[in-house]
Amino acid sequence: MLVGYLGPKGSFTHDVATHSFPTSERIAYRTITDVIKAYENQEIDFAVVPVENSIEGSVHETLDYLFHQGTIQAVAEVVYPIKQQLLVAKKDRLIRTVYSHPQALAQGKAFLRAHYPDVAMEMTASTAYAARYVAEHPDLEIAAIAPLAAASEYSLEVQARDIQEIEDNYTRFWILGAKEPAMSETLSPALQKISLALTLPNNLSGALYKGLSTFAWRGINLTKIESRPLKTALGEYFFIIDLLNEAPDLIQFAYQELDSLGIQTKVLGRYQVYTLKDNGMEKR
Amino acid sequence: MLVGYLGPKGSFTHDVATHSFPTSERIAYRTITDVIKAYENQEIDFAVVPVENSIEGSVHETLDYLFHQGTIQAVAEVVYPIKQQLLVAKKDRLIRTVYSHPQALAQGKAFLRAHYPDVAMEMTASTAYAARYVAEHPDLEIAAIAPLAAASEYSLEVQARDIQEIEDNYTRFWILGAKEPAMSETLSPALQKISLALTLPNNLSGALYKGLSTFAWRGINLTKIESRPLKTALGEYFFIIDLLNEAPDLIQFAYQELDSLGIQTKVLGRYQVYTLKDNGMEKR
Repeated sequence: MLVGYLGPKGSFTHDVATHSFPTSERIAYRTITDVIKAYENQEIDFAVVPVENSIEGSVHETLDYLFHQGTIQAVAEVVYPIKQQLLVAKKDRLIRTVYSHPQALAQGKAFLRAHYPDVAMEMTASTAYAARYVAEHPDLEIAAIAPLAAASEYSLEVQARDIQEIEDNYTRFWILGAKEPAMSETLSPALQKISLALTLPNNLSGALYKGLSTFAWRGINLTKIESRPLKTALGEYFFIIDLLNEAPDLIQFAYQELDSLGIQTKVLGRYQVYTLKDNGMEKR
Repeated sequence: MLVGYLGPKGSFTHDVATHSFPTSERIAYRTITDVIKAYENQEIDFAVVPVENSIEGSVHETLDYLFHQGTIQAVAEVVYPIKQQLLVAKKDRLIRTVYSHPQALAQGKAFLRAHYPDVAMEMTASTAYAARYVAEHPDLEIAAIAPLAAASEYSLEVQARDIQEIEDNYTRFWILGAKEPAMSETLSPALQKISLALTLPNNLSGALYKGLSTFAWRGINLTKIESRPLKTALGEYFFIIDLLNEAPDLIQFAYQELDSLGIQTKVLGRYQVYTLKDNGMEKR
């Protein structure tokens, strides 16, 4: 079985793919769109992509592709803790410049200010690229902020551990495919959820209100609602809604009512949520 | 009068600052947070920052800062067309690598595939950084995708004009400050709007529904609704709502009702929307 993921090697998505499918062959792709397209071209059996971070919010490339072009759906979700490490080619050497993704730099800023006040920060396209750059330039006085997986992947040393500012930082990853995967036993099943994309007929105020009514008066719990631009004109949106999949009958009635209101519904995923077993996340 | 903007020079935000305040001194800052902080430290009189793009969606750094930390509000909005140019140090030379921001690369991909099928694409932190890099390395076989303003700023030549894939690409920019600015006459006033951030008491489904009711049954039109993570835990959000400011009395009643429902309201801006006079956008 082949599993594609958003690379490069040493990325958080790589880590999630390894945790979820420890015995499968795993293939890195350069962009989220490339991973999903690889699935559509039947190069892989499952695609692992990030969908939402607790600080940064939704991953637009994933949701927009699934809404606009995709026919593939999420069949499992993994909620994964994001911890950032300060990685170097050789430990305890002078560090003049730190490379990382803008969000990881933001998360590491307080730590760097306290421990490396004179360091310069340079942005890269991903944390794993930063780690690779440091590994490829072992003689420069540089470091990367990147996941622990990147340290082993690129043979880097951990200069400082868990330097992120906000402790409670998690990312939701979706596993896209045709059927529910057999997940590794290192993961615990939690909630069952459904993610929908709603497209409203004109007049946002009234239509969104009516759409939400179909769930509210049936007591169906939403865990998320978000608007995304339709890419037609500024001010035109579609809506992503996550539901707890607790009352399948009621949800079917809600679908029918949305349809009769002229609200289009696309199912982006119907999935079991998993968390890591050994880091106190079972309560989620 | 001093106007701060998200730099570097040659960025779209620079262009908007120049258009809006042609006779003021303008100062570039490195990040959106730096621009807003400069205002808070009374270094500048107005701050110009991007807030939403019609393809990419909201600019989280702007909205999150204003919600979580800011006391500053939007006092004007400029809706500005985004057009991308292929810029080179010297025209009609071989191009092996094209540098730009990931979104601009995505927008230019179809053009490059058609006209430069063998070119490599490299990501940079912004379009203006890409332009500056090309200007600083005039002997390399490289190009940048960047705004027209970057060509004059960095003395680059335009190899190909308006190469973006989607024609209808606009960004909303906010002018933050203490009072409504006197805007340049090259801009036309359009709608009046209010942007609010709502924080709900627990139970998302019911509370959001009730919050929207306060606007819906008064016939107050929403032009946008979006959730953003509260950064506390995965699944906790605040909501950004844009209203047409057509019935101030009714909006005051809605505020009171939101308050009595336990929904907290923060005003992010109350502003006149402006468009460019000479590019057919008056109809917006």
